[in-house]
Amino acid sequence: MKSSELLRDIVIGMSDGLTVPFALAAGLSGAVNNTDVIVIAGIAEVAAGSIAMGLGGYLAGKTEQDHYNSEEKREYDEVENLRDREIEETKEFFANIGLSKELQIKATEEIAKDKKQWVDFMMKYELGLEKPDPKRATKSALNIGVSYIVGGLVPLSPYFFVSAPAEGLKISVIVTLICLFVFGYFKSRLTGVNAWWGAVRVMLIGAVAAGAAYGVAKLFGG
Amino acid sequence: MKSSELLRDIVIGMSDGLTVPFALAAGLSGAVNNTDVIVIAGIAEVAAGSIAMGLGGYLAGKTEQDHYNSEEKREYDEVENLRDREIEETKEFFANIGLSKELQIKATEEIAKDKKQWVDFMMKYELGLEKPDPKRATKSALNIGVSYIVGGLVPLSPYFFVSAPAEGLKISVIVTLICLFVFGYFKSRLTGVNAWWGAVRVMLIGAVAAGAAYGVAKLFGG
Repeated sequence: MKSSELLRDIVIGMSDGLTVPFALAAGLSGAVNNTDVIVIAGIAEVAAGSIAMGLGGYLAGKTEQDHYNSEEKREYDEVENLRDREIEETKEFFANIGLSKELQIKATEEIAKDKKQWVDFMMKYELGLEKPDPKRATKSALNIGVSYIVGGLVPLSPYFFVSAPAEGLKISVIVTLICLFVFGYFKSRLTGVNAWWGAVRVMLIGAVAAGAAYGVAKLFGG
Repeated sequence: MKSSELLRDIVIGMSDGLTVPFALAAGLSGAVNNTDVIVIAGIAEVAAGSIAMGLGGYLAGKTEQDHYNSEEKREYDEVENLRDREIEETKEFFANIGLSKELQIKATEEIAKDKKQWVDFMMKYELGLEKPDPKRATKSALNIGVSYIVGGLVPLSPYFFVSAPAEGLKISVIVTLICLFVFGYFKSRLTGVNAWWGAVRVMLIGAVAAGAAYGVAKLFGG
C-alpha cells in the first residue's frame, strides 16, 4: 500500500471521528445532568460510526473490484466480438484529444495489435477505471475504523474524568478544537491547499456541528 | 447536475444516516431507562452528522476546485516555460499506451500545437483530474445533509412514540432493517452489482453496527 493511501484512510476516519462524537457529547452536555449518559452514548456512537465507516469502506472497495472485473470481462468480449465498434471508440478517443484523422487511424491500429494492451487502454482511458488492489479493501476498512476510534476518543476522554457535563464540555471543546486545528493543518498540507486556512476550516466544521447539536438537544431536551 | 450525481449524494447521506443513528439508539436502549435520552442523543447525532457530512462534502468540493485551478495554472506555466519536459511527458503517455516511437513523436507534435488542447489533455490524462462543476459543491452539501437527516429520522421515529426503550428498539430494528434492505437493493442496482446480495450486505452492516453499539453500551453502562 502506498503511504498516501494510508494517510487518506486516516484522514477519512479521523475527520469524522473527531467531529461527530465531539458534537454528540457537546449536544448531550446541554440536556443531561451527569456525564455517565454522555460517556455511554459517545462510546456507542464511536462503535457504530467506526463499524459503519470501516465496513462501509470495505464493501465499497469490494464493489469497486467486482465492477472492475466485470467491466474488464466485457471489454475483452467486445474487442473479440464487436471489434469494429471498439475501433471506432478508440479512434474517437484520439480525435477528442486533438489528433488528426491520419494519426487517429495509425494510433488505433498500433494499440489494437495487442489485445491485453488494448483492453488496458480502454479500461483506463475510455472508462476511467484504475485496477484496484485486491488487498486494499480490507486494509482500508481497518485503517478507517481504527482512525475513527482514535479520533472519537479525543473529545470523549474529558467526560471520563469529571461528573459535571458542563465541565467536561469545557475541556472537550478546548482539546478537540486544538486537535481539529492540528489535524486540519496536516490534512491541508497533504492536499496542497493553504494549510492555515485549511486548519481553520476543519476546526469550524467541528465547532458548527457541535453548536448545532447543542442547540437542538437543548431545544428537545430542555 | 446529472441525476447520477444526485443519486450518489443521496446514497452517501442516507447510508450513514440510516446506520449510525440506528446503532446509537440501539446502543442506548440497552443502557438507559427511558426514551427521552435516546431521542435527544439521536437528534443531536443527526444534527452533528448531517452538518459534518454536508459541510465536509462542501469543503471537499471546494478543495477539489482549488486544487484543479492551481494545477491548471501550473500546467499552463509549464507548457510555456518547461516545454521540453512537457513534450517528454506527453511522449511518455503515448509510449505507455503502446504507440511506436514514430507515432509518439507525431501525436505529441499535433497535441502541442494548441496550448489549451495540450493543457486539457495533460490535466485529464497525465494528472487524472476532471474539471469540477463550480456549483456542484453547494448542491452536493445540501443533498448529502438532507439525505442524512431523512435517513436518521427513520430509526429514531419509533422512540418518539413509546416510553420503554426496549419497545422502541424492537420497532426501530424492524423498520430500519427493512429500509436498509430496500435502500441497499436500489443502491446496488445503481452500481451494477447483484441487487439482492447488495441489499443483504447493506442490511448486515447496519445490524452489526447496532449490535456492537448495544454491546459496548451494555458493557459500560449497565
